[in-house]
Amino acid sequence: LLCVGLDSDISKLPDCFEKSIEGLLEFNKSIIAATCDFASAYKINFAFYEQYGSDGFDAIKQTFEMIPGDTFTIADAKRGDIGNTSAAYSRSVFNFFQADSITVNPYMGFDSIEPFIESNKLVFLLALTSNSGSNDFQRLVCNGKPLYQHVIEKTTARYDAGNIGFVVGATHPAELAAIRSIAPSNCLLIPGVGAQGGDIDAILAANADALALINVSRAIIYPQTAIADKAHYSAAVCLLAQEYAIKMKTE
Amino acid sequence: LLCVGLDSDISKLPDCFEKSIEGLLEFNKSIIAATCDFASAYKINFAFYEQYGSDGFDAIKQTFEMIPGDTFTIADAKRGDIGNTSAAYSRSVFNFFQADSITVNPYMGFDSIEPFIESNKLVFLLALTSNSGSNDFQRLVCNGKPLYQHVIEKTTARYDAGNIGFVVGATHPAELAAIRSIAPSNCLLIPGVGAQGGDIDAILAANADALALINVSRAIIYPQTAIADKAHYSAAVCLLAQEYAIKMKTE
Repeated sequence: LLCVGLDSDISKLPDCFEKSIEGLLEFNKSIIAATCDFASAYKINFAFYEQYGSDGFDAIKQTFEMIPGDTFTIADAKRGDIGNTSAAYSRSVFNFFQADSITVNPYMGFDSIEPFIESNKLVFLLALTSNSGSNDFQRLVCNGKPLYQHVIEKTTARYDAGNIGFVVGATHPAELAAIRSIAPSNCLLIPGVGAQGGDIDAILAANADALALINVSRAIIYPQTAIADKAHYSAAVCLLAQEYAIKMKTE
Repeated sequence: LLCVGLDSDISKLPDCFEKSIEGLLEFNKSIIAATCDFASAYKINFAFYEQYGSDGFDAIKQTFEMIPGDTFTIADAKRGDIGNTSAAYSRSVFNFFQADSITVNPYMGFDSIEPFIESNKLVFLLALTSNSGSNDFQRLVCNGKPLYQHVIEKTTARYDAGNIGFVVGATHPAELAAIRSIAPSNCLLIPGVGAQGGDIDAILAANADALALINVSRAIIYPQTAIADKAHYSAAVCLLAQEYAIKMKTE
């Protein structure tokens, strides 16, 4: 169930890593090595790399290449545009980066989502996100149902569950249970555990053993302990990943 | 009023340009030179460059640098994510690329929009987009008003008109007139003229001389005439830009 989020940021690297793109890549390599026995998936948040421009974009590519071939990868890029533009984003994420899946914003409608679906990779559509801003529009009630429910119902009516998943924040366990009743077999990507405060036990109960990836980023890759060197850092990250993986299995 | 959209695509370059990133950059340079006397702004569609990976990302940077310093630039990137991630996208677009404005997707709410606003650059929030998929969610009626109207009203209540504009497709002139009554002084970015079929006269009438940029991409950068060489191509593009600029001025 565990997805490790590579939200790597040069300004947050521990002192034992060089504060540069090279240091960032070395950091990612060490995080992947420390967590790959416990992670079912890795999620790469494009923004953290794009802030460094084309070198950062190249670092995304190099990071995808570090991930073991049998581990699922998520391009967390939140893309979405009119048809011919979404098709170009799809080529970027699936042909250039060779990701296994992408996060897509539904606001522009189905012709903006379709080019990603056509790739036959998994598309995670934003439904009810983990942030407090999810109240602003996603929960607006249209014809008796919140917007995010329209997104899920219209999408499941249109596409096979194997083609499309949904992003549902770990900060909304009650809604997650309701979402499971309308999307029982779609894979859910559940961010918001750890730094954002989502509760794993509540999420596992609401998800009821259905297909899901629970993402943890900062709470695994930046351990809150005093770290002497790279070996110590790696051990601390490994321990955290193991703890999260065990929690997700046994509860 | 004219915004020229640099939706440049190697596979669509005319034969007189090399089919490579270098050819694409030469093409952009020639388009900018041919249109800069008539364009108030240039819009760079990130997807068309990201499909070529890090070299493409670098080509975005080089294209921004080609644009005359006094001409307004739009990073058409449709970004938006939780706060710390939107802040990283903001650094990418405003610090690395030095764009004057960005297109942002509102679905994730105000805490996802805020980091872009804080940059004190102009943010174009997607409202009613030009594609047919705009019917799927943007027009869902919540509390008696379509979703896109909630986006506009909540946003104008929150931010000064100088900080935020809206994307309204040229394919919806009737709605544009209604939007002008609730957002009279926000800048509108109006795509969808040309290849997508939006009618300039109807748009100008609906906009009623308010602040707007009307984007034309394919209908200017890919003239539908037989082209012998680069000089011919440049002349054809220049003529089209002039025609569009005149139409937008006089009607």
